[in-house]
Amino acid sequence: MLVFYCALSTCSNFKGYYVIRFDAVIHFAGLKAVGESVSKPLLYHDNNIVGTITLLEVMAAHGCKNLVFSSSATVYGWPKKVPCTEEFPLSAVNPYGRTKLFIEEICRDLRNSDSQWKIILLRYFNPVGAHPSGLIGEDPRGTPNNLMPFVQQVAVGRRQALTVFGKDYSTKDGTGVRDYIHVVDLADGHIAALKKLSDPKIGCDVYNLGTGKGTSVLEMVTAFEKASGKKIPLQIAGRRPGDAEVVYASIKKAETELKWKAKYGIEEMCKDQWNWASKNPFGYGSLESKK
Amino acid sequence: MLVFYCALSTCSNFKGYYVIRFDAVIHFAGLKAVGESVSKPLLYHDNNIVGTITLLEVMAAHGCKNLVFSSSATVYGWPKKVPCTEEFPLSAVNPYGRTKLFIEEICRDLRNSDSQWKIILLRYFNPVGAHPSGLIGEDPRGTPNNLMPFVQQVAVGRRQALTVFGKDYSTKDGTGVRDYIHVVDLADGHIAALKKLSDPKIGCDVYNLGTGKGTSVLEMVTAFEKASGKKIPLQIAGRRPGDAEVVYASIKKAETELKWKAKYGIEEMCKDQWNWASKNPFGYGSLESKK
Repeated sequence: MLVFYCALSTCSNFKGYYVIRFDAVIHFAGLKAVGESVSKPLLYHDNNIVGTITLLEVMAAHGCKNLVFSSSATVYGWPKKVPCTEEFPLSAVNPYGRTKLFIEEICRDLRNSDSQWKIILLRYFNPVGAHPSGLIGEDPRGTPNNLMPFVQQVAVGRRQALTVFGKDYSTKDGTGVRDYIHVVDLADGHIAALKKLSDPKIGCDVYNLGTGKGTSVLEMVTAFEKASGKKIPLQIAGRRPGDAEVVYASIKKAETELKWKAKYGIEEMCKDQWNWASKNPFGYGSLESKK
Repeated sequence: MLVFYCALSTCSNFKGYYVIRFDAVIHFAGLKAVGESVSKPLLYHDNNIVGTITLLEVMAAHGCKNLVFSSSATVYGWPKKVPCTEEFPLSAVNPYGRTKLFIEEICRDLRNSDSQWKIILLRYFNPVGAHPSGLIGEDPRGTPNNLMPFVQQVAVGRRQALTVFGKDYSTKDGTGVRDYIHVVDLADGHIAALKKLSDPKIGCDVYNLGTGKGTSVLEMVTAFEKASGKKIPLQIAGRRPGDAEVVYASIKKAETELKWKAKYGIEEMCKDQWNWASKNPFGYGSLESKK
């Protein structure tokens, strides 16, 4: 689960052993299902917070003080306005959100105590899509918590219909609006952050990773229908408690300082998601059965 | 460090072994020096937060879901008014405070996920004094962070003078005002909380443990001089960044619901502190040298 992205690592021969020194860590590891975090908060606090504190201690012990951490737009809570800038007040509205918020605070404390630390917190908006190869994609266990894995399972016939939570929001079509970002763009954002760590001005800094565009649930479904040629039957349900109406990112800071900007729109996101889904209707289980 | 107060514990003979079942845990364990938390935040987040998450997991694994936790008035941050009621907005102004605040939030998440948990968070104000026997008292390593251990070390000749941080606050004599509580009263508050856990209305509830009275630094010093017969030389310094002006507790909730109220005033606090200090001028090291 813990990914050590070994950037610029140096290799030296030390008493016959090769010693690999990590220069930076990209820490993506974390549980991320909001509903599960409500029913199993200790699991989330242990995995996410304890895991991060342990990682930071190991990094400190080995003199590696460069970190890129996957935070989330969830730390904006229910934002009072959009687009969300990095300066918005922070709050958590569920245990999952609290793990992200607490880790951000722990990182800020750490940097305040020791200026050798260089930490970039990336606040993800809504990652969707898949690698264009169709070999890497999302494969959630159980009922998907997020829109696109659910849509994908309807498209391949694993589920009857997509449940849309709330059609009475004051948005263009009544459904919730989010900032979807292609996973390949997201990955590129991490490379940009990694490069930024060498900037002497970096302390513990925060960047949104989003497209800056709001897309409604229905717009996303329409785009997926177009990409896949499949009809997605809908089932309209009430609002989900705790869901915000409209959330999308201000991308100015990332654009200016990371020199990074999302390249892909919802068409590419849906095309690549469908490529993955149609090749692997049962996710990684499909790959297994091909062997 | 971790105290399992084994209240109402039951003992049963299981396959030749005696099995002790813990019915409740009073969790006092935690690092508490604000300054140290600023310079060593990972130490604080690890010891306090990771320690608590581990304890909660062990408790859950053994079916013991009754907890009394030592929180702190620090979670009121810089309160906008006094007395502080339990409903005040919460915030943290240093890493130590964040550990207390995060643990409170984790406890609330836990109770929300499982109604078998009964948790009482006790928000300590400023504990001082010692056990009247003179056998148990505070013995901080290095420079004391709190007023009374410092005063005590001046009285026994271990330090030249007491540094008073700020004499220009808008208080009766210009010095900071706090709510000092005798440690014996504090201990009694825990017994009251433990009894309260059997109340079916308890979920994750919070009580202040204070006297409800604000005492200035100079008033406290005068009371100690009277109790000890020693003159405490003062050195006036500037305000310490981050120190609040006046903080004292609203004690209504604890009085009404826990049926607990502090019995001792600053005279008894200073008398017992001096009894401990004069018998053990070098803390527990004094006891060692008597052997």
